[in-house]
Amino acid sequence: MPKMKAAIFVEPGRIVLDEKPIPDIGPLDALVRITTTTICGTDVHILKGEYPVARGLTIGHEPVGIIEKLGSAVTGYREGQRVIAGAITPSGYSYACLCGCGSQDGAGTKHGFKATGGWKFGNTIDGTQAEYVRVPDALANLSPIPDGLTDEEVLMCPDIMSTGFSGAESGAVQIGDTVVVFALGPIGLCAVAGAKLKGATTIIGVDTVPKRLEIARQLGANHIVDFKNGDVVEQIMALTDGRGVDVAIEALGTQATFEAALRVLRPGGTLSSLGVYSSDLTIPLSAFSAGLGDNKIITTLCPGGKERMRRLMDVIASGRVDLKPLVTHRFKLDDIEAAYDLFSHQRDGVLKVAITP
Amino acid sequence: MPKMKAAIFVEPGRIVLDEKPIPDIGPLDALVRITTTTICGTDVHILKGEYPVARGLTIGHEPVGIIEKLGSAVTGYREGQRVIAGAITPSGYSYACLCGCGSQDGAGTKHGFKATGGWKFGNTIDGTQAEYVRVPDALANLSPIPDGLTDEEVLMCPDIMSTGFSGAESGAVQIGDTVVVFALGPIGLCAVAGAKLKGATTIIGVDTVPKRLEIARQLGANHIVDFKNGDVVEQIMALTDGRGVDVAIEALGTQATFEAALRVLRPGGTLSSLGVYSSDLTIPLSAFSAGLGDNKIITTLCPGGKERMRRLMDVIASGRVDLKPLVTHRFKLDDIEAAYDLFSHQRDGVLKVAITP
Amino acid sequence: MPKMKAAIFVEPGRIVLDEKPIPDIGPLDALVRITTTTICGTDVHILKGEYPVARGLTIGHEPVGIIEKLGSAVTGYREGQRVIAGAITPSGYSYACLCGCGSQDGAGTKHGFKATGGWKFGNTIDGTQAEYVRVPDALANLSPIPDGLTDEEVLMCPDIMSTGFSGAESGAVQIGDTVVVFALGPIGLCAVAGAKLKGATTIIGVDTVPKRLEIARQLGANHIVDFKNGDVVEQIMALTDGRGVDVAIEALGTQATFEAALRVLRPGGTLSSLGVYSSDLTIPLSAFSAGLGDNKIITTLCPGGKERMRRLMDVIASGRVDLKPLVTHRFKLDDIEAAYDLFSHQRDGVLKVAITP
Amino acid sequence: MPKMKAAIFVEPGRIVLDEKPIPDIGPLDALVRITTTTICGTDVHILKGEYPVARGLTIGHEPVGIIEKLGSAVTGYREGQRVIAGAITPSGYSYACLCGCGSQDGAGTKHGFKATGGWKFGNTIDGTQAEYVRVPDALANLSPIPDGLTDEEVLMCPDIMSTGFSGAESGAVQIGDTVVVFALGPIGLCAVAGAKLKGATTIIGVDTVPKRLEIARQLGANHIVDFKNGDVVEQIMALTDGRGVDVAIEALGTQATFEAALRVLRPGGTLSSLGVYSSDLTIPLSAFSAGLGDNKIITTLCPGGKERMRRLMDVIASGRVDLKPLVTHRFKLDDIEAAYDLFSHQRDGVLKVAITP
Repeated sequence: MPKMKAAIFVEPGRIVLDEKPIPDIGPLDALVRITTTTICGTDVHILKGEYPVARGLTIGHEPVGIIEKLGSAVTGYREGQRVIAGAITPSGYSYACLCGCGSQDGAGTKHGFKATGGWKFGNTIDGTQAEYVRVPDALANLSPIPDGLTDEEVLMCPDIMSTGFSGAESGAVQIGDTVVVFALGPIGLCAVAGAKLKGATTIIGVDTVPKRLEIARQLGANHIVDFKNGDVVEQIMALTDGRGVDVAIEALGTQATFEAALRVLRPGGTLSSLGVYSSDLTIPLSAFSAGLGDNKIITTLCPGGKERMRRLMDVIASGRVDLKPLVTHRFKLDDIEAAYDLFSHQRDGVLKVAITP
Repeated sequence: MPKMKAAIFVEPGRIVLDEKPIPDIGPLDALVRITTTTICGTDVHILKGEYPVARGLTIGHEPVGIIEKLGSAVTGYREGQRVIAGAITPSGYSYACLCGCGSQDGAGTKHGFKATGGWKFGNTIDGTQAEYVRVPDALANLSPIPDGLTDEEVLMCPDIMSTGFSGAESGAVQIGDTVVVFALGPIGLCAVAGAKLKGATTIIGVDTVPKRLEIARQLGANHIVDFKNGDVVEQIMALTDGRGVDVAIEALGTQATFEAALRVLRPGGTLSSLGVYSSDLTIPLSAFSAGLGDNKIITTLCPGGKERMRRLMDVIASGRVDLKPLVTHRFKLDDIEAAYDLFSHQRDGVLKVAITP
Repeated sequence: MPKMKAAIFVEPGRIVLDEKPIPDIGPLDALVRITTTTICGTDVHILKGEYPVARGLTIGHEPVGIIEKLGSAVTGYREGQRVIAGAITPSGYSYACLCGCGSQDGAGTKHGFKATGGWKFGNTIDGTQAEYVRVPDALANLSPIPDGLTDEEVLMCPDIMSTGFSGAESGAVQIGDTVVVFALGPIGLCAVAGAKLKGATTIIGVDTVPKRLEIARQLGANHIVDFKNGDVVEQIMALTDGRGVDVAIEALGTQATFEAALRVLRPGGTLSSLGVYSSDLTIPLSAFSAGLGDNKIITTLCPGGKERMRRLMDVIASGRVDLKPLVTHRFKLDDIEAAYDLFSHQRDGVLKVAITP
Repeated sequence: MPKMKAAIFVEPGRIVLDEKPIPDIGPLDALVRITTTTICGTDVHILKGEYPVARGLTIGHEPVGIIEKLGSAVTGYREGQRVIAGAITPSGYSYACLCGCGSQDGAGTKHGFKATGGWKFGNTIDGTQAEYVRVPDALANLSPIPDGLTDEEVLMCPDIMSTGFSGAESGAVQIGDTVVVFALGPIGLCAVAGAKLKGATTIIGVDTVPKRLEIARQLGANHIVDFKNGDVVEQIMALTDGRGVDVAIEALGTQATFEAALRVLRPGGTLSSLGVYSSDLTIPLSAFSAGLGDNKIITTLCPGGKERMRRLMDVIASGRVDLKPLVTHRFKLDDIEAAYDLFSHQRDGVLKVAITP
């Protein structure tokens, strides 16, 4: 049985590069040879043991690669084709998919803490920080890369861009809206770009790291609020003449950002909350009901599927959004442990790393 | 200056019947002679001092009456016409109204606790538990009562029915949905009726009072969960084969109901929360993120305006919903203090009282 | 190779019962033994040569049956299970499905007249008027029949009920709406039931056949307009006090009904047009732009997929809609030619026929 | 009674500058002194007698000016304030407004050809090509001009920009959509800009005038189809790899553009049709039902109201859209007849003219 290298979760605190068999595939699957992947903040939650996965699992959910082999029931693709797949891999045929909730495909255990929906790679099945990955339900998930786009140019599509954009989409940003984005990591920066793409005319970015604030301005933020410069809520209300924002996008998941996001909503406004929380939050209803009604909190899991990926790659191909500044560091797969070390400690202004074989 | 009788908030614990001048009206107003009104749970919060209003204010926000006088700029109505107005009185021309958030008309003070949107009667202006009431922005708010409907038949329209139905509406109930309604007071009962009207096929009512459970069945609940019979979440998950509900409507505002409502949502489901909270709540995100994403919490304030009232009265006139069982007791305005006593102590199976001159 | 009986399109004017091999199935398919099916108005268009299909094709797209055999990649079902599938069989993984347009799965040839979307049975593949049918993409399409429902009770779900309801759904009927349904054949009757389920309070049915008008009343129509009793538009405008209807559902596809439907729309109203047209229509814009703007025409193809079928069967199981009166005649498959003769000539007050082995 | 100059419709073929009394105002109105206005294609329909208005009416519906006087019931503004109002002036309190169809405010005569909704200026009341104009329902319609914006910069907001953008908005353009705009006059050019603002990544402009094609590229079109270079439908299908467009925006209203727009829609796509038609059109259903279903035709009348205007001016202030190239010629009000002559004959590459006192 041929072997490959893979980044494996051993125990809390340890993700190591090791050898594993190249995955077998079933009739609905594809085997993809990874040409570029990356590390996500969620992977760091896994590393730290804050988000539990099985020991021995290959980590990573952001695949860019080449089709190595197609399952017997998979048509419409050819081996050797350059493809991506989303971090979320809907089957297309589940009850959730047919309800229009593809990102929830596979979700089931409502009572327990961990109902992870359609997020399978590096969570419930082996992931992409490896030489090869098995893509389930390939018919719904393999999305060919348009000619002329490099691996790095599409590396944000599977998760970061899809999740960030979904903040603006689930918040239903309209032409002329005022949008605030709390926390300008890679996902928050994509939320800024998504809000601009949807027609927001006033976009307020909240963070404190100069490099992030600079990229936020490039991507569309026309106001910056540094939370070290005094009360965030007051600064935002002043920027909006006391009216509040139409949509608040929360990309960190802390008590402070969540509450502030609620308090700056205009009556009838929407809070769109992104990402995977590593601990419980409480939402004081005094914040929530500031407008006494007609407010929404939406928790969004990034959408997936080949059509989603096609659209996001089109955005890149059109030149309307340039996410290349997000890739700040590059590593070989052999050096992925060093990449985790850099990324998990957020050293050297790292935003995203590119991992190649 | 001619006088009238009115129920006035004196101080926490005391709402008394007293004399006040009949209101003056401006060019955009109408003066309506009240023929029937009622007491709302929110009025009890006011009585207890839990929801602050100005001392001396006339209480009540559910008017059924006859046009006594029209402001100089008000056309399209005639004196003597039988009308209702919603508890929420949008102006029609505010920024919030033109944004489609008429129930937020007038909302402003985001920072403080009390931003009460378009709810003016018995809150920011004199209310309806009186012989006469001034209706602001009459052009947008006076809604003629169709021939053949009695005062009591339309008495739920201004608030209870509008608020209850909005739970089903903001939750976007679809044909074939499963809906749970927590707490079957008058608003929760109307939420049951609204869920049925929107096409829900499985409606689960949660309460413990036999009379309420019986009316819930009449209005459309096909399952009843008595929260005294064991874990509510488990009972509801069992009723839905472990799938959870599409829409949960929360009509009480306690920590327990709010959390349970979150825990029974299917992935992608919506929690619609109704009413005015009398204290802070906390929402543990472990409950909220049970599905990890694509969930919504919507806090709804009942919509108002004459078109809303027209539609609700049409529902009554069509015979599709019969809310007469909600009016359990009747009082003269002269005896309104006794009515408050009965209603605030929830004695004798009271659901709603009708107050007439 | 074992044989079965099937109703086959021979040439315009001739659909005959003949023998054919029992279908082979691939890894994504299921073989279903038909226990009940029916004939649709569209099949009559095929019979008359108005809608072209391949010679030798088995006709019929409304399957109720029992799983005989499952493809190798199909899990989650068991042989012997009672199931239905929709007339429209989305794959779940096509571009159209992942766009939320499952009823368009497979649509491709935009330029030619015949782009038939996800309608495959009895159109692009062998249909259901046979002893057995191959169900493609079984994972997305097989929907188990709830215990306690008979074949006849669910026989309308695959097409008639799904199509009729979609008229009310795509028209976005709201609580308190006024809806008119033009033509009260089986689909129009289901549109009446769907409009009622969505909360319409005034439902106007337009037809002239007494039996149909009677069933329309049972299903929710509270006004009937007989187009033989004078101008239809004037009658409807009178019934709505000159205001027009919120939603018009057109279930016939003639020039006269289409124009009338446009002319009775209120400003901002929606025309939902159902079914397969057998000839060109012209829409005079003077009718369409009666309101000068904010009008919509929506042409709806019935949605399919197992989740859709589950919901429709839930509606039947809940007792909220009783479609049994639609099945007026019963035939054995051996006598299907007689059934076509009766149905295509609309003799004896036939609405729908049930065909059993 | 003081007099002013105004452009008056005398009879088909003649709009002349003449003297009229300065308008009186009622309690809900404002008197605005016009500082800049313009001529619309619709005004040319009026000039030619193709769209009937009363003889003696002042023409024009695009006001930029200064508040001269406020009605007694109008608060929240001050005399001397720079304002615009939309071409559509919803009251805020009509049944249509409270239904969310403000652009239909006032619409009534469904049966006749002319139901003009909320379009009042230069249609049912005196218009803006004059020294002064009466603005009805001022509370809902006066929108202050942000500091730093010139009259010409906001001159497109009342109609051209609002209408053009509404094509993209009513078509519900999504991130990654492919949009085609037929006819690149001022409204079509704004539709291009609106489609870009909403996130379209492929925007195809159809016209033949080089100057228009050039501005279309500046505003966001990344493909141009010249209808003189062969079959338009084939060119567009080739540009979309045979898939068709998500949204087609039709800004001319001819049979040819309407049909082509239908034929290039993807299954499930939407045709958004703008403007006021000068003659009947017929829509062959063979074009419409190319996808057999799930298509929409939406006829849009530009939205109005002060909140709409505020948002559009914010788009200009943000620098995201530059419409200055649309103003190609400038005239004094005294020379408006020359302006009509130039504009109605589309000489000298005219797109829009600015008219000042």
